[in-house]
Amino acid sequence: MPLADALADLSRLMNDELARLLPLPEGSEARLTEAMRYASLDGGKRLRPFFVLQGARLFNVAEQAALRVAAAIEMVHCYSLVHDDLPAMDDDDLRRGRPTTHRRFDEATAILAGDGLLTKAFEVLAGPATHSDPQVRCELVWELAAAAGPAGMVGGQMADLLAEEREMDMIAVTRLQQMKTGRLIGFSCEAGAILGKAPHPQRQALKAYAHDLGLAFQIADDLLDVEGDPALVGKGLHKDQAAGKATFVSLLGAERAHAQAEALAAQAAAHLDVFDGKADLLREAARYVVDRKL
Amino acid sequence: MPLADALADLSRLMNDELARLLPLPEGSEARLTEAMRYASLDGGKRLRPFFVLQGARLFNVAEQAALRVAAAIEMVHCYSLVHDDLPAMDDDDLRRGRPTTHRRFDEATAILAGDGLLTKAFEVLAGPATHSDPQVRCELVWELAAAAGPAGMVGGQMADLLAEEREMDMIAVTRLQQMKTGRLIGFSCEAGAILGKAPHPQRQALKAYAHDLGLAFQIADDLLDVEGDPALVGKGLHKDQAAGKATFVSLLGAERAHAQAEALAAQAAAHLDVFDGKADLLREAARYVVDRKL
Repeated sequence: MPLADALADLSRLMNDELARLLPLPEGSEARLTEAMRYASLDGGKRLRPFFVLQGARLFNVAEQAALRVAAAIEMVHCYSLVHDDLPAMDDDDLRRGRPTTHRRFDEATAILAGDGLLTKAFEVLAGPATHSDPQVRCELVWELAAAAGPAGMVGGQMADLLAEEREMDMIAVTRLQQMKTGRLIGFSCEAGAILGKAPHPQRQALKAYAHDLGLAFQIADDLLDVEGDPALVGKGLHKDQAAGKATFVSLLGAERAHAQAEALAAQAAAHLDVFDGKADLLREAARYVVDRKL
Repeated sequence: MPLADALADLSRLMNDELARLLPLPEGSEARLTEAMRYASLDGGKRLRPFFVLQGARLFNVAEQAALRVAAAIEMVHCYSLVHDDLPAMDDDDLRRGRPTTHRRFDEATAILAGDGLLTKAFEVLAGPATHSDPQVRCELVWELAAAAGPAGMVGGQMADLLAEEREMDMIAVTRLQQMKTGRLIGFSCEAGAILGKAPHPQRQALKAYAHDLGLAFQIADDLLDVEGDPALVGKGLHKDQAAGKATFVSLLGAERAHAQAEALAAQAAAHLDVFDGKADLLREAARYVVDRKL
């Protein structure tokens, strides 16, 4: 199964890159870096880095540059998990089968570790090793900030926290998920095209792929929350249900949600028709996000 | 008093710029932007923006560009205050004479508002309106991230939280303060030189000014914590003492701390000898940071 092998390979590469970018300093603030490493090393499916590297391959971008961008995006993803898990937010004790960062360290350290990961991500992108053309680096910084900021991920998390208090229909849930997870997945898929200065239609194809795949991913997530095996998923389940939050599953029912995720995955793969066999792993990934058990 | 007038003028300009950069969106995430505006509008001395604008004037940088950079730095400064005030950190109820962001809204909203301000700052810097040369924008992003990240402000806050548990001498306290406040003040003073592509010696002069002024500022802050008028300062006092934390005042005594702040302020101003009358307000600011009552 080439996708599984590719993800396993990438996990190793990603760990090495993150460990290299987050060296342990001397002094008392070493605790901060320890928490940043705890939150970002050895865990996760590394799906976003996978999208960056596979997108970059389409345009023959040097792997080292793609790895830096992938590490930056993964830092932002991991920071968002650390903050979302805090007692004041989702109050989760378990993440990836391990204590969450604030449980392993403490709340203050977790808040700062999240802040540190977010800040470090922009330092990595702006550094000359990411690309020789500063215009490309600026575009990466701008796009990541837009995807992760108030009009993207952070705004989505705010809307999610308020979701318990209001009635949401399909349009509202879709919009929330686009902000909370869709925008960062979108940037992950587009980053390779930015690095490779890809022609507009090819960049648009990746954007469209990311859009449909992101929604499929989120529907699959909602299904896992209801149907998943806690031992595999490695985090608390049935939280949305308990909180009375509208999800794709509560709105569509499990059966239609499955069908919708399948249709979106197929549609995502179809956007890749403009690419040749080099995009095969991305095609396979569209299936994986709906079939995954964790 | 020209400095007071300049600071008052700048406060208005800064408010307008921040309000323009943080427009209230539709939808439930409007609460997030409200909190971001609450944390950044109508408050503070705007010292960092002042340094940016005065530095930029030395090199005839367009005011609009300087205002954007100043707004980005102020967003980062304000985010750090919002997170530092959280119950898990310094647990402060009052800031600038008003309830802290988590008291006015709630903890989750405050965490996200901080995250949003930090992210937005990088979006602003990377945007083409900041400078026509992407190399300059990348340098601004990189320098801000380095100043605010684990080797700078966030690392300093971590060290500060751990300071209660360990003995600290002058070297350790100085290092902590350089990280926690010095680096961002340093970037504020240097930003104009980056925007204006200033010659190396002039940029170094501003850096040296910032270094001494930053330390003077911090010593004055420690003195205010002991000697200040709570009604003027607008935040809780005597917190370091209560926590048994080493400060410049506890290590030097009030008298020597005053003398040290004075000496550093004079030394800071002396670094500006390479500039003509255009640097007069910066010279005056070196006095202001040690004489201020808030």
